[in-house]
Amino acid sequence: MAFHLGSLGFLAPFDFTDYKLMIKEVLQGNCQMILRSRLTCVLNNPDILKHEPSHSNVLNEIVIDRGLSPFLSAIELHMEDELITVVQGDGLIICTPTGSTAYACAAGSSMVNPGIPAIVITPICPHSLSFRPIVVPAGVEIKVTLSPISRSSAWVSFDGQNKQELKKDDSLIIKTSIYPVPSICFRNQIFDWFAALENSLHWNQRSQQKKLNQ
Amino acid sequence: MAFHLGSLGFLAPFDFTDYKLMIKEVLQGNCQMILRSRLTCVLNNPDILKHEPSHSNVLNEIVIDRGLSPFLSAIELHMEDELITVVQGDGLIICTPTGSTAYACAAGSSMVNPGIPAIVITPICPHSLSFRPIVVPAGVEIKVTLSPISRSSAWVSFDGQNKQELKKDDSLIIKTSIYPVPSICFRNQIFDWFAALENSLHWNQRSQQKKLNQ
Amino acid sequence: MAFHLGSLGFLAPFDFTDYKLMIKEVLQGNCQMILRSRLTCVLNNPDILKHEPSHSNVLNEIVIDRGLSPFLSAIELHMEDELITVVQGDGLIICTPTGSTAYACAAGSSMVNPGIPAIVITPICPHSLSFRPIVVPAGVEIKVTLSPISRSSAWVSFDGQNKQELKKDDSLIIKTSIYPVPSICFRNQIFDWFAALENSLHWNQRSQQKKLNQ
Amino acid sequence: MAFHLGSLGFLAPFDFTDYKLMIKEVLQGNCQMILRSRLTCVLNNPDILKHEPSHSNVLNEIVIDRGLSPFLSAIELHMEDELITVVQGDGLIICTPTGSTAYACAAGSSMVNPGIPAIVITPICPHSLSFRPIVVPAGVEIKVTLSPISRSSAWVSFDGQNKQELKKDDSLIIKTSIYPVPSICFRNQIFDWFAALENSLHWNQRSQQKKLNQ
Repeated sequence: MAFHLGSLGFLAPFDFTDYKLMIKEVLQGNCQMILRSRLTCVLNNPDILKHEPSHSNVLNEIVIDRGLSPFLSAIELHMEDELITVVQGDGLIICTPTGSTAYACAAGSSMVNPGIPAIVITPICPHSLSFRPIVVPAGVEIKVTLSPISRSSAWVSFDGQNKQELKKDDSLIIKTSIYPVPSICFRNQIFDWFAALENSLHWNQRSQQKKLNQ
Repeated sequence: MAFHLGSLGFLAPFDFTDYKLMIKEVLQGNCQMILRSRLTCVLNNPDILKHEPSHSNVLNEIVIDRGLSPFLSAIELHMEDELITVVQGDGLIICTPTGSTAYACAAGSSMVNPGIPAIVITPICPHSLSFRPIVVPAGVEIKVTLSPISRSSAWVSFDGQNKQELKKDDSLIIKTSIYPVPSICFRNQIFDWFAALENSLHWNQRSQQKKLNQ
Repeated sequence: MAFHLGSLGFLAPFDFTDYKLMIKEVLQGNCQMILRSRLTCVLNNPDILKHEPSHSNVLNEIVIDRGLSPFLSAIELHMEDELITVVQGDGLIICTPTGSTAYACAAGSSMVNPGIPAIVITPICPHSLSFRPIVVPAGVEIKVTLSPISRSSAWVSFDGQNKQELKKDDSLIIKTSIYPVPSICFRNQIFDWFAALENSLHWNQRSQQKKLNQ
Repeated sequence: MAFHLGSLGFLAPFDFTDYKLMIKEVLQGNCQMILRSRLTCVLNNPDILKHEPSHSNVLNEIVIDRGLSPFLSAIELHMEDELITVVQGDGLIICTPTGSTAYACAAGSSMVNPGIPAIVITPICPHSLSFRPIVVPAGVEIKVTLSPISRSSAWVSFDGQNKQELKKDDSLIIKTSIYPVPSICFRNQIFDWFAALENSLHWNQRSQQKKLNQ
């Protein structure tokens, strides 16, 4: 149960000023829950004897980018052990529906309600006019590797933290975690989400102003 | 089980030239199925005694637009009996994941794999810089009405057909149908989908060409 | 010299409440001018003996769309007597910089300051992931015709008015007019334009709010 | 006069295989010229006595980004000594028309023909749904500074090179250079540009394939 102290956000729908009343309501069961999916990631490298694989769980997104390299990244995206495409550009965002209103949204993704079992894949400044973001089912296993044509390594970060290098022959495996994060809705997962879209992102604000003015 | 005679499409993954072999494989059970969701729509009007409500099922999308009106449409979008937003622009597309690679894609939506239980909502040329497309859970009940500020009526069409007027006080109710369309995959719903993205829409073609050239 | 009575707009930078003072300032020469370019269009048809060519001048845009046709439009875009591309989709917007903040903006164009001698070309819901809007020099002569592959005729409108059919073998010739519209700036063409972007379109509103909040 | 050895590019319209014939034609004056504008930049810092201001000229773009900082950049954009807006996101691209088909294009800009006297301003992954790219006249003086709300410094690079820190109280002044780069067209600046759009970026490729197929 998350309270916001300042502006209404996606993860904190409750206003702190009413916190006693709110907690009482929730304890009486007058509330709905939402299970926010997370992604679980393993970064493998070939020298597995020397280096343990590195595990992470994210609530928002995994970002693979070129860091300070002057070259475009060239990243292979695999699903279910098939090469899907090669990403050439600044990088790639693999996010949960919760993360689709964060960095992925800035990179051009549609916004996906957290009630949907899905993974959103969004390129960052792709060197291709036709690389539209895509949404795939939550069950898919994703693998990310450096393309053989890449001129430098790439960098992986997990919810904006714990930046690590993705070197040639490393592989990053991403799956929906079996441990989602339960959180308590203020009203329900549809209403709360649109309230946050409008308050945090000013989604379609123009139309609403018009309505008020006329 | 759908065969394509010309170019590979989203709904017809099988090549007709091998049709005997393909059918044999399928009859032996060597295949995967996908259930493509549909939307069921009811157009109600207040003179219910005079006019029966009009029912439709769509596999791709419902489009509400301004038709030949010189005025912007002003359409109210409701979910679960709450007003979500007012759409001012050329119109609105409400589509299945199958439809997300058709007209909604042209209007700027992300592309959503048909294995995901979701409804995609995409404005057409919105008069608002911030009206990003959204994806909501399949279970949500959507209602569309003319806004009181609208200067003319709107037009509704169902998979591009059966165009009808949406007048003041009419309401269009849209839900995921309980009767999806089963279809047979060539390989599986992930592989077939990306094959069609590349063949039909040239999705991220640049990157792949680079890979081949180098 | 244009006054706005309601919300600040692109074409009316002056507030009516101060109109006497404003007019006095302008009469004293304390003002800057901007020349807003217009497009001049001629719609020719082969039966020139029967039908006079139809002339129009627009300040915002010429729109060529499919009207109520259920088929995608297929429109040929020529420049300087060369075929540039074929537009398949809902249609095409050819606009002045002034028009780039109107319908073209809703269709995804960048916003072009009216001080720039240019013509902006924006597809409407193109059936191609890679059809990014383009900006060409003001001097270019543009010709629009129906493609031979088109399954129906198209419709042309001029600043949203005077809708006419574009039939097979018709051609629409578009050039920058030699008669721009002079208008008086409130301050100057840069300041006025950004003020209108923010007031009329809420351009980058999020960032500014952040600044105020922190 | 620039020859391409591999794929046709924006800056090298001539095919090397015909180089003798091409050079002969050009020497006989059978060619058109284009003047590609450049941007001239000065990075000032307050300790001007200690550090010389740093000058650069770019043909494509100046990029101001957050580098490896985990925080969003907060960059003030000024024109003609007025604060225009605050950019919150990964960064900002200020480019020539020539650069509008390079990195700015990947970040979502419209593509601007090099014959147009303009500067294109494109945010990189802006934290605002409404930050559409803009195009301003070539004569405008642009100043970029760190916003007081910025949590870290930013990084500036010039045509992808010479990366430098932009610290608090530094300012980056950008103007159109009075020294454009003359280059020789293969045919003319309209034809060459569209040929490169199609060959290098597969611009609107779908439509053209359709035309050929039918």
